[in-house]
Order: sequence, then structure tokens, then C-alpha cells
Amino acid sequence: MNMILLEQSDFVGPQRVELRGRRHDHLAGILHACAGDELKVGLLDGKSGMGHVVEIGEGRSLLEVNLTQDPVAKHPIMLVLALPRPPVFRRLLSAVTALGIERVCVIHSARVEKGYWNSPSLTEEAVHQAVVLGLEQAGDTLRPEISFHERFWVFAKEELPQLMDGRTALLAHPDEGKPCPTTVSSPVILAVGPEGGFVDDEVAYFKEIGFQAVHLGKRILRVETAVQALIGRLLPLC
Amino acid sequence: MNMILLEQSDFVGPQRVELRGRRHDHLAGILHACAGDELKVGLLDGKSGMGHVVEIGEGRSLLEVNLTQDPVAKHPIMLVLALPRPPVFRRLLSAVTALGIERVCVIHSARVEKGYWNSPSLTEEAVHQAVVLGLEQAGDTLRPEISFHERFWVFAKEELPQLMDGRTALLAHPDEGKPCPTTVSSPVILAVGPEGGFVDDEVAYFKEIGFQAVHLGKRILRVETAVQALIGRLLPLC
Repeated sequence: MNMILLEQSDFVGPQRVELRGRRHDHLAGILHACAGDELKVGLLDGKSGMGHVVEIGEGRSLLEVNLTQDPVAKHPIMLVLALPRPPVFRRLLSAVTALGIERVCVIHSARVEKGYWNSPSLTEEAVHQAVVLGLEQAGDTLRPEISFHERFWVFAKEELPQLMDGRTALLAHPDEGKPCPTTVSSPVILAVGPEGGFVDDEVAYFKEIGFQAVHLGKRILRVETAVQALIGRLLPLC
Repeated sequence: MNMILLEQSDFVGPQRVELRGRRHDHLAGILHACAGDELKVGLLDGKSGMGHVVEIGEGRSLLEVNLTQDPVAKHPIMLVLALPRPPVFRRLLSAVTALGIERVCVIHSARVEKGYWNSPSLTEEAVHQAVVLGLEQAGDTLRPEISFHERFWVFAKEELPQLMDGRTALLAHPDEGKPCPTTVSSPVILAVGPEGGFVDDEVAYFKEIGFQAVHLGKRILRVETAVQALIGRLLPLC
């Protein structure tokens, strides 16, 4: 936790927050924070700054906060991700949030197990928690936009073409196409299939509407590794 | 498992292997392989090719193999990694093996918990298993070289300077130095610290001997994400 992430409901005064539960436990039990300590804090989807510990009591912490810094802009990378196994999905959602990409569209694909769509990892609360963990790790406040699309062809035909607008469209496809480029100057939309890949019909459709197949070499990577390596490669840094 | 990885001890004839345990279970239970099926196989540290299933019996599989292809060259990237938490270490070792880097030096650092060095994840057998999982995933046969260095300063002073020879030396350091470059043309040595980073003395030493601090932006990443994103960024592809 490199930042204590605040929500509006934590405020008990104009600049005063009261924390209970996980964040209080972290302050008291992990950081051993004391009255007078200064910590990095940020308001979800808002500004960040410093928090001054006023009191650490039984079960709650009081902080005086001063939020002055605007959030860092998201990287203009949109990930279209075939739903992975639930534990991988949770971890990956935190990781891509920490990496600072602007949007994740989680989609079905022929090789995604249908049962994954009923996982508790996909509830609003679980998704929120995974995103919060990523923001706390990164020291960031802005959430990426996350959406779920349980019908591949409805998403692919009705939504994907508009999402591509103005973006370099890349389809991760092991050992086909060209090497994945680095630091593309335009916004990017990157599609990554399930373990085993998108099926032929799906690949053909991505290509037909303008996705360029790209690879990271001849080795076949797990989805979790491929996504992080591809985003690392594409991050526009300055 | 995108390749069945063979060891010399599996051979029961010049081109015939007998598999028991995990690999047999995978063939029989996951792939539902039958006599006559063809599968990708490779000899650990050797050639790869196709395996023809001769027989799947109770508890063992017999394959006729034809190993003709030389392994793909490793990427000239050496990772110097402060030992992470054991479950992260296991996962990350499989991931960087799959990514195809040539060497991993696992080192101590002031912020590494001493107890991690006694973890069962560091036994020869556990390390071998993590590497094998990475190779089976990637469809690769060549192991990376893995070494352990439990004393930071002994490694840093007596071994690190020679390891840097002929390599671009990069130190992952959030929010300092320059953005991590992409696809460096020379071999690379990349140092990644523990959660919380290398301490000031360690950072100063890395810089003194010629490491360039590089970052992936202002966001602080978990070690697991940072390593995969940095390697993805540095992979020389053609």
C-alpha cells in the first residue's frame, strides 16, 4: 500500500477522515503509524496529497488530509481481454490498474470456460477491490474503466469497431504477424485471447476489421505474463 | 503445457520414451491423448520435435519421438532479482523462463526478509520444477542459468562487475532516472529490487559501478509486474 486511498464517505470534516477496517489495520498493524506521522493519501478518482495522523485508536484512525495534486494521466491503452481463470483475473486486474492503462473490456471468447462468468471475482465489489489494490500499490487515484461483455459476437460487431476509432489496433497472437511494436505514439487498443488463443473465426474477424497481429517471439506465454509484457512494451513514457 | 518436456532418463529406446506421473496424467487426463496422436515434445536443454503416442496405459504413456529442431536462442537479458516472497518467486521464475531470458541471479538486499532464504521454494527440486513449468508453457527446452547469492555485498563487489561486462546495465528505480529504453541492441543486465526498493547504499553502489536508473513512469509497481513489464519492453524481437 503506497497510498491510503480515501472515499468521500470517509470524510467526517472538510479535511478530516476516519478510517476503519482494512486501512486502519494497515496503518496500525503494518505501518505502526503514530499521531504526528505523515502519509501519502489520495481521494478515489480525485486529488492526492499528504495525510497527517491525528489519532490511532482501537479500531479507527483519524487523519487530517491536504489534497493538492492532480492525478497523473492514464496511459492511452485499452485492453480487450478474454476472461481468464478467476484468480488470474483478480491479480491481473490489480496489475493493469497499477500499470495505469485507461480501460479494460473483459470479453467472452470460444475458449473461455462459461463458468468463469459466474465467479464471485466478477461482482462489482470484487472488481472494485482489485482495482483499489492496484491504485494503492501504484500510488494512483484514477480508476480505469472496466466493462464486461459476455457475448463475443455482440461485442465484436456492435462495440469493437467504434472502440478502435483513432487507435492503433493490435491483436496478440503468438508466432504470427510482426513483433509487437514499442511505445506507439497513438492511443492503442490491444486484444489478448484466453489460454490457447482466440479461435480461427475470432482471429479472422479481428484482422478483417483492422487489427494487426503482433507477437513477443516464438515462445507461448501465459495470459498473465503476455499482458504485462505487452503493456510494458507499449507504455508511452516521457 | 504446450510441449511435453523430456529428460534423458525417460528414454527406454533410441527414440522411445516412457512417461509416468505428472506428464502421463496430463496426456491421459487433460489432453485425453490416444494412440496415434501427435504432440510437441522436446528434450531438456536439447532439440524439440514431434512425439507419436504409441500407447496410453494405466499409469504410463509410451511415445515414439523424433527430435530434429534446434532450440530457439535465449534473449541476451540477465536479471538480477532481489529475492521476492516465495510464492511470487515461484511464479516469477516460471514467467521469466517462459519469456526466454538467459540468466537470473537471485540476490539478497537489505529489504529482503532473511527467512525467505529458508523457503522450500529455493530447493534445487523446487527451482527445477518452476523452470520446467516455464519451459513447458513456452514450448522451449533451454533452461536459463539460475544462481543464488545470499550476501548482497559479496555478490555486488566480487561478481557483479564481471557480469556487467559488455552489457547495458539498467537499475529499475521508480520515478528516477530516465524512462526504461526499448529493445536495447546490446545484451542487458537488469537489476530489480525488493518491494520497497533497494536501500540508498545499494542504489548508490549500483550507480557507482555504472548502472543507469530507469523507470516505467510515476506509478509504483509490484516486483512481479515490474519484472514482466520491463522484460517485455526490453525483448529484442525480429
